[in-house]
Amino acid sequence: MTEIENLGQRAQKAKKHVASLPTETKNEALKKAACDLREKAPMIIEANKIDMEMGKEHGMNAGLLDRLYLDEGRIDQIAIGLEQIAKLDDPIGEVLGMKKRPNGLMIGQKRVPLGVVGIIYEARPNVTADAFGLCFKTGNVVILKGGKDAIHSIQAIVRCLRQTLADMEIDPDCLLLVEDTSRETTIELMKQDRYLDVLIPRGGAGLIRAVVENSTVPVIETGTGNCHIFVDESADLDQSIEIILNAKTQRIGVCNALESLVVHENIIDALMPKLIERLREKEVELVGDEIIVSFDPTIACATQEDWGKEYLALKLSIKTVKSVDEAIEHINHYNTGHSESILTNNYEHAQKFLNEIDAACVYVNASTRFTDGFEFGFGAEIGISTQKLHARGPMGLLALTTTKFIILGNGQVRP
Amino acid sequence: MTEIENLGQRAQKAKKHVASLPTETKNEALKKAACDLREKAPMIIEANKIDMEMGKEHGMNAGLLDRLYLDEGRIDQIAIGLEQIAKLDDPIGEVLGMKKRPNGLMIGQKRVPLGVVGIIYEARPNVTADAFGLCFKTGNVVILKGGKDAIHSIQAIVRCLRQTLADMEIDPDCLLLVEDTSRETTIELMKQDRYLDVLIPRGGAGLIRAVVENSTVPVIETGTGNCHIFVDESADLDQSIEIILNAKTQRIGVCNALESLVVHENIIDALMPKLIERLREKEVELVGDEIIVSFDPTIACATQEDWGKEYLALKLSIKTVKSVDEAIEHINHYNTGHSESILTNNYEHAQKFLNEIDAACVYVNASTRFTDGFEFGFGAEIGISTQKLHARGPMGLLALTTTKFIILGNGQVRP
Repeated sequence: MTEIENLGQRAQKAKKHVASLPTETKNEALKKAACDLREKAPMIIEANKIDMEMGKEHGMNAGLLDRLYLDEGRIDQIAIGLEQIAKLDDPIGEVLGMKKRPNGLMIGQKRVPLGVVGIIYEARPNVTADAFGLCFKTGNVVILKGGKDAIHSIQAIVRCLRQTLADMEIDPDCLLLVEDTSRETTIELMKQDRYLDVLIPRGGAGLIRAVVENSTVPVIETGTGNCHIFVDESADLDQSIEIILNAKTQRIGVCNALESLVVHENIIDALMPKLIERLREKEVELVGDEIIVSFDPTIACATQEDWGKEYLALKLSIKTVKSVDEAIEHINHYNTGHSESILTNNYEHAQKFLNEIDAACVYVNASTRFTDGFEFGFGAEIGISTQKLHARGPMGLLALTTTKFIILGNGQVRP
Repeated sequence: MTEIENLGQRAQKAKKHVASLPTETKNEALKKAACDLREKAPMIIEANKIDMEMGKEHGMNAGLLDRLYLDEGRIDQIAIGLEQIAKLDDPIGEVLGMKKRPNGLMIGQKRVPLGVVGIIYEARPNVTADAFGLCFKTGNVVILKGGKDAIHSIQAIVRCLRQTLADMEIDPDCLLLVEDTSRETTIELMKQDRYLDVLIPRGGAGLIRAVVENSTVPVIETGTGNCHIFVDESADLDQSIEIILNAKTQRIGVCNALESLVVHENIIDALMPKLIERLREKEVELVGDEIIVSFDPTIACATQEDWGKEYLALKLSIKTVKSVDEAIEHINHYNTGHSESILTNNYEHAQKFLNEIDAACVYVNASTRFTDGFEFGFGAEIGISTQKLHARGPMGLLALTTTKFIILGNGQVRP
């Protein structure tokens, strides 16, 4: 039996148990897990040191090393995350829309766990506890497959969490870790539709593409964000500058950051000088189409590739258009279905943009940076779905649940 | 450019148009399509004759030939289906749960079409108009790939429907047909995540497996049904016999028919003699476990394979258990996640069964035959989903929609 098969069978065995845990027990376990993580922080930090040293040896870049790094403060943050999940309402068990049919059958939909959730992620140890907390709260077994660059940190966190479960007399197999981080084992995990109900990749475009192409398990795609803001003719210019600055520079390495600005031709003169000045103060590199370049020859010419690019950096492409229709067409062509915003004071244009833009989140007069489970008031976030099935946009606990129809009869047969 | 690429690009072009059609226009087109189908019935029947002759030549069995066959009455049924879809409420455009956040942002979810739906089916010409009607009503473009054994009938129906669209000045590319029915082209269709938002296989287990294994497009699996009824100790015996007879024999070739009966040991003597007699009157072949066989030696012994088998025939397997727990364990092991029913008068057992059975539809004291979009009151049915993501159980129009978040601001930036 392979490791994956063994994990799959253990997950199936633990599934019924975790699905039936009372809310109170789940919350107690999450709170205890937070305490235990804090208490065992030194052990986790020791393990993290091994990963950090190997990362440095292998020439891992500063950004990735920062994501990998754990100290007491960061472990405390992870613990706080679990405590927050404990405070959220338990969505499991609710019955939705129970209605009576003419033949007397009562039909409703009961909210239940998905069952077994697979999560594939990269070298971010914090995802370990976060993914466990969200899956556990919703009564799911989770099988984690973390990046090999963080494997010692991840193992230490998993060991700590499984001990908490065991201490609470909960089957520790609610949380399973794939120890073998080889590519073959990862591919094998993607083929386990027999054992897994869903697979969620959390990471870069390469990982997500590999999962979409190889998985026979249903996937929730959490995608990249090539986010646009369109500044319409009638936009409030001062407000627009603040929104653009916020969306581009408040945090740059995130999927809801602004990557491409679309500007109505008629307001270039009024908007651009001050906007360019403010963006340059923040050291944002600019590329633009011909009209932008001829307006300000210090701006470099954008290539075809720029329009489709998620920079995740202090860089912004600027495209001019003649109308809201042209803006919508451009955005629908190049966007990744994440977050798009129109800045306008024209009611009809706002409605048109809301109706016609094909994306998970469509804004009027606000920064794209709000696309986030916490900002949307869900109290948690599994990720941001850029696909259309099951969940679209920021996903809270509900995305980790499904429903089953329950039908109460008193002897009905079909005529 | 391949045929599939050409269709994908045409679908993308037609997508915005069909998504924005007013409800009234969609309903008029559906009603006109029904009239046109009736009017062109002779032409469709001519095309169907070619498929029927080829089917007979290739030794197609009687059941499949019956599914393939079209006459005026059957075409009228197809037309009535479109008229019924015209009468349903249009789910597109509704905004769900618009709420105000503390920062003043208004956030709601707008119901929108999925975009481009791919449907792969077999030699059932009626699926052509049905799938078109459901996708069109929900503002989706549909790309159909029908079975090669029905290709002439399907082409004739598609030609008729596209003419209706053209007559109404609607882009006929709302309905596209893959003309090349080769395996290579079908596989190519499954890889078009660039153009397709969802792929729905409608057909047998082999087709569904091929789609799950090959598709990079998100799939809605409409699966097989190995449905069980568990007769508990406290069940009303006369009512149980009527329910079992109904579930097994009212229609046999359908996924919600009863395939396996689970009986509490303590009621074998009271239930079985009369039940066996009634089932044999209906010519149902019985196989059972050792206890059943020793109770009635004329019943054949069930093999391991029987417990997992969807007979779709006048055959029933019978398993005895000592408790409701054993019944649940057996059913959760062998079921296909479709429809399961408990017959009982014990409140606790009913609750346990409802909670612990892992299936799309869980019944108390009713026939499994009610698992159906029309019986559930949806007014339509795309299929019955046996997966857990997006839609589970009978799927009505809502399964062909998604939502997007719309966020209305007045200058909000993220602090």
